[in-house]
Parts: sequence; structure tokens; C-alpha cells
Amino acid sequence: MQRRSFLKKAAVGLAAGSVAAPAIAQSNPKISWRLAASWPKSLDTLFGGADMIAKWVGEMTDGNFSIRTFAGGEIVPGLQVLDAVQNGTVELGHTAPYYYIGKDVGFAFGTCVPFGMNDRQSNAWWHFGGGNEVMEPLFTEYGVKALLSGNTGTQMGGWWRKPIKSLADIKGVKFRIGGLGGRVIAKIGVVPTMVAGADIYPSLEKGTIDAAEWVGPYDDEKLGFQKVAKYYYAPGWWEGGPRLMTLVNLKKWDELPKNYKVALETACHAANEWMMAKYDHENPKALRRLIAGGTQLRYFPKSVMEASEKGAYELYKEYMGKSKHWARIYPQWLAYRNEEIEWHRFNDNTYENYLWHSKIKAKI
Amino acid sequence: MQRRSFLKKAAVGLAAGSVAAPAIAQSNPKISWRLAASWPKSLDTLFGGADMIAKWVGEMTDGNFSIRTFAGGEIVPGLQVLDAVQNGTVELGHTAPYYYIGKDVGFAFGTCVPFGMNDRQSNAWWHFGGGNEVMEPLFTEYGVKALLSGNTGTQMGGWWRKPIKSLADIKGVKFRIGGLGGRVIAKIGVVPTMVAGADIYPSLEKGTIDAAEWVGPYDDEKLGFQKVAKYYYAPGWWEGGPRLMTLVNLKKWDELPKNYKVALETACHAANEWMMAKYDHENPKALRRLIAGGTQLRYFPKSVMEASEKGAYELYKEYMGKSKHWARIYPQWLAYRNEEIEWHRFNDNTYENYLWHSKIKAKI
Repeated sequence: MQRRSFLKKAAVGLAAGSVAAPAIAQSNPKISWRLAASWPKSLDTLFGGADMIAKWVGEMTDGNFSIRTFAGGEIVPGLQVLDAVQNGTVELGHTAPYYYIGKDVGFAFGTCVPFGMNDRQSNAWWHFGGGNEVMEPLFTEYGVKALLSGNTGTQMGGWWRKPIKSLADIKGVKFRIGGLGGRVIAKIGVVPTMVAGADIYPSLEKGTIDAAEWVGPYDDEKLGFQKVAKYYYAPGWWEGGPRLMTLVNLKKWDELPKNYKVALETACHAANEWMMAKYDHENPKALRRLIAGGTQLRYFPKSVMEASEKGAYELYKEYMGKSKHWARIYPQWLAYRNEEIEWHRFNDNTYENYLWHSKIKAKI
Repeated sequence: MQRRSFLKKAAVGLAAGSVAAPAIAQSNPKISWRLAASWPKSLDTLFGGADMIAKWVGEMTDGNFSIRTFAGGEIVPGLQVLDAVQNGTVELGHTAPYYYIGKDVGFAFGTCVPFGMNDRQSNAWWHFGGGNEVMEPLFTEYGVKALLSGNTGTQMGGWWRKPIKSLADIKGVKFRIGGLGGRVIAKIGVVPTMVAGADIYPSLEKGTIDAAEWVGPYDDEKLGFQKVAKYYYAPGWWEGGPRLMTLVNLKKWDELPKNYKVALETACHAANEWMMAKYDHENPKALRRLIAGGTQLRYFPKSVMEASEKGAYELYKEYMGKSKHWARIYPQWLAYRNEEIEWHRFNDNTYENYLWHSKIKAKI
């Protein structure tokens, strides 16, 4: 029996006093790593992604490669995960690269930019369309390896206290939004304000801000925005398919045996699928609860969408001269985006649109 | 150092003449399994999914759990993979469960049914919406465990020699299509004909059939249909988000150590993400080549879609009395489908539709 003869050989190797460990033990060293996430544990889909990676890697290696996950603020603040991985405070991080556009605006492409690709298109770009490769020099400059590990799908356009019927209605509104979305929406007169997750609800309640965006129905409901703002807008055009990433300290990565590298990579792949599926499961149910509670669903007027998109491309053009990484990545990304949207629209979206508009209802 | 002390302990345990193998070796037995796929190797995205699973599992276990993949026909014909796994001819299969609706029509839900969920909705149902659980008794009855391992996205509506402008145009057309799609389209007067992949091109050329569906631009182009049929229709409403599955012989599954089970499960998760991303990467490029070569893109008329959908639900109702598994699964599946479509339409599809219709074009 193959298994028995294998064990026998291993035992003989050791019993003969060989100091060099047998191959099997060499490739399964006991390693304990720490992962700093950008999320509180209450966001059980974002943080859950990190937890699943730790669980799968641990189980696949019989507990030899163990990863302990920490919420934002436990080891480092949620927005300093890149720094913590870079300087070796932790071996791993689970975060959204676009949190680091202050260091280099090119990091936006690690997550998403306004009017960019959806979840599936994002995955295609990253894994097959050269996305991973074109982003690598930037991540390497910061001493990390990035592994795609999650997506939220298209986010919602946030909670607004007053309805938006025209571009005029949106001007001067203090809107909690960060990153590139904030820079774009400022171009149409909105006042973007950055407020940490836990402070959004009180800020909305007190009127320090007039509106706020967060993620989507399932995560938003937990923070209680529906109690202080009535209008829930779609779509969140600044986050069409935001990627979350596991960042690995490059030196630590290089030290990993091959089997542990593949275990971690495969777990990250799987977490990407897991997270999108969990959001797709939870969001419809949360949306139904919100509507039952009085939330009013609204779409952004076309004028707001178009003015924002125009503003976005103006900004992207400006960045061509401001970041060498942006200048490398943006043209490659844009061509890919356009081709992907064309194909999805022709087939997948045609199917989806038909299903929604169909008046034929099944009876069981 | 943790690693060194671990090795020392392992060595001591063995050197002391302990016959019982140390934990680490027990959990990494040498195992060689064979996987029979339903696909030819030339379909490098479908067969590629099986290959990736084998590659990842092998690498994660340092080659101790090795899986050898075989194309359809190498060990068993492509449409007999379930039987081969059930009777232990092979330990693993990579196939589409709906090939086995002749055994029980409930198997359709393992892949897809006409007018069903798209890729993302399918994943949500399987992993979180009770899909895996509600399908388990059926797979168990056939002695296999099913692990979700791939998706093609919405398939195309096939190659037609004459344009379809109304329901009348489609009547009497000999169309190569299998499974439930064939049974549904027969209700509107099409003559469904089953022809194996390799025989489709000659059958179309000779006129034995008038039209044929296969997968999507990337796979269809390889079979050369564009040379003998001019009109390429969207969408393939009979396959909105078909799942591919790895089937594992249940007895063999139960014998696997926990770490190998998790390695295989995680690799299947990852293959699901990998395959969809590869299709999304390849399809737009293939579609462009086809159009450049003279292929004419067309949408099915609404009358054809609606008559087909009506026919589909009539059929689904009939099956309620014909398969106990269908009667269990269909109501659960239908409620989930309707909820998912509502949410996707409101947010993700709104975003996607905007992007496509937008007249604003970026200039670099």
C-alpha cells in the first residue's frame, strides 16, 4: 500500500539518525502569522473573508501554518494595514488598496475607480487581463505581495436625507465618502467628508453631515442609517466592483515553502468567491427588511451620473502626470474595461434585463 | 525557533522507535486519484478547471495527494462521468450535473435550468442559500459528493443559418441543443437534436441540422461554427449561469484525511472563480474576432423569449409530480431566484446598464 510504504521510508530516514529533516517535515514547518484587517469583526462578510483564509490555510496544513486574524484597531488602525505589513509589524493584512491613494493614487486600481469594472470584470482583469502584473511594481515598491481576496459587488449610492432630482439638489450637500469617489463627486459640487464607520450614524443624526455612503444593504443596515436618512440611492458608481486584497510582507512571503504559498494563494482565491456569494445572499434579504421599515429606494438622476463620469475622466487624465504608476496602469486598465463592458452588455446583461422585465411568473 | 523545535520533536518521536506514525505523516498519506472530465482537452477553460484543481491540490500537499486528469472518452465517455464516479472506476469526475437528467430531472439544478440564475446568483444559492444542502440527498443517492467547481457565465443562444424575426421563423428548425433547454424549446416548435460536440460542425455544414448551440464565443470559435452559420444569437436563456461540479466517490471522500478534504474543497472553490474569470477574459476577444470575420450578432425576439419562458414553467410544474427531488428542490430554488434577480436588477444591473449606454468616452 502506497501510504504504508511511504511512512516506512520516512521512519527509516529518521531512525538512521539523519539530522536533515525528511522532505515532508521540511515542507510543513510550524509557522504562526498575524493578519491585521481593516474591518471591525461586526462586518462579518469583509472580516469573514479574512477569517475564512485563516481557517482554510490552518486546516489544509493540519494547523502547522496558523494565521490569527485581528480587527482594525486591535494591532494597528484599519487604515494603516499597508504600513503594518510593509514594516513587518504583522506578516499579513486584509484591506482595500484604495485606502492608500494618499501614498500613490495608483493604489486605486487595486480596489476600484469610479465608473470602473464590476466584480466579474475585475476578476478577469486581475487574473488574466494583466491586472496583477501591472499592479505588481507598485505593491513591490511598498514591500508587499497582493493576493485578490474578496469583492463586495456594486455598492449602493448611500443614504440621503433629501431626494435628489437634479444636479442642483446635490450641490453643497455634506456627503460622507472617501477616496477617489470623494474627489470625483467634489467636481459636481458635493462636499465630501471623511468620517470613520462608527461615527457616521451620530454625524448623520446630529446633522454634521447630510448624507453618507458605506457598503450595501447588509452592512449599512447594521450601522442603522435607515433610522436617520430616508432615501437609499443606487448605484454606487464609485465602487462598481471593489476588490479586497490580502497583503503579504514580501520577505516573509519569500521565506514560505512552496506548498504554504499555494495554500495561501488558493485560500485567497476561494475567499474572493466566498465573499461575493455571501454578499449576494445577504443583500436581498437586508434590502427587503429596509424597505419594510420605510426606506425609499431611488436612482441617481442621469444628469448626476453623467456629470460625475465626465468629472472622473478629467481627474484620471490629471493623474497621468502625477503618478508614474497611474500613467502605466490607467491606459491598460481602460482598454480592458471597455472591451469587458461591451461583451457583458451584449449577453449577460441582456439575459438579466429580460428576467427582470419579464411579466411571466411561475406558479408552483 | 518554532520550526526547529517542531522538527526535533518529530524526530525524537520516530527515533524512539514509535511504530505509530507521527501526526504529520498520518495526515499526509500518499494518494493517487484519477479524475474523469466530461470535456476534451481542447476546451481549455472547462478542462482547465479540472487541471487547476489537480495542480493546486498537488502543490498544496507537496505532491502527496496527486490527481491525474483525463479527458472525456479517455477512461469513460464524457456523458458517463457520474456513473464512473458512482461505481468507483474513478475517484473523481468533473462534469455538468444536468447531463444526468435522464436518471433524475432534479440533477438539472446542479447545473442550471432555463430562465434561472446567473453566475453570481448561482454561487450565492449554492454556498449560502441552501442549494448545496437541498441537492445533497440526490447526489448521495448516487453515491457522490458534489463540489462546485466552475461556471461559464450566461451562454450564447447559438448559431443560426437564417435570422429569427418571429416565433414563426423558429418553428421546425432542427436545432442542436440538449437537456432541459431542448425540452423547453420543443414547446415552441423547434426540433431539438442532440449531436456530440465534434459532430456539430459537419452536421451544420451538411444541413442535417439548421442551427446549433454550444457555449460562448471562445469555445464556439474553436469548433468553427462561424464558417457555416452567419447569425449568432444572444442570450442563451437555457443556460444563464451553468455550474460545473467535481463529483467525488462518497466512500473515497470519507476515507480522506481532513486536511486533504479541505485542500480539495478549497481548490474547487478557487477553480470556480478561475473558470469564470478566464471565460470573461477570453469571450470578448473571441467575439471581436468573430465579428471581424463577418458574424452577425442578433438578439432573440421578445416573443420567442416569452413563449419559451412560459413553456419552461409549464414543464417545471409537470416535473413536480415526476421526481421527488424536483418537488423538494424547485420551490426552494424558485423563491431564491426571484429574490436574487430583484436585488441584482436594482443595483448591479443599473450600474452595468448605465456604463453601456453612457456616451461619455474617456480620452487618455
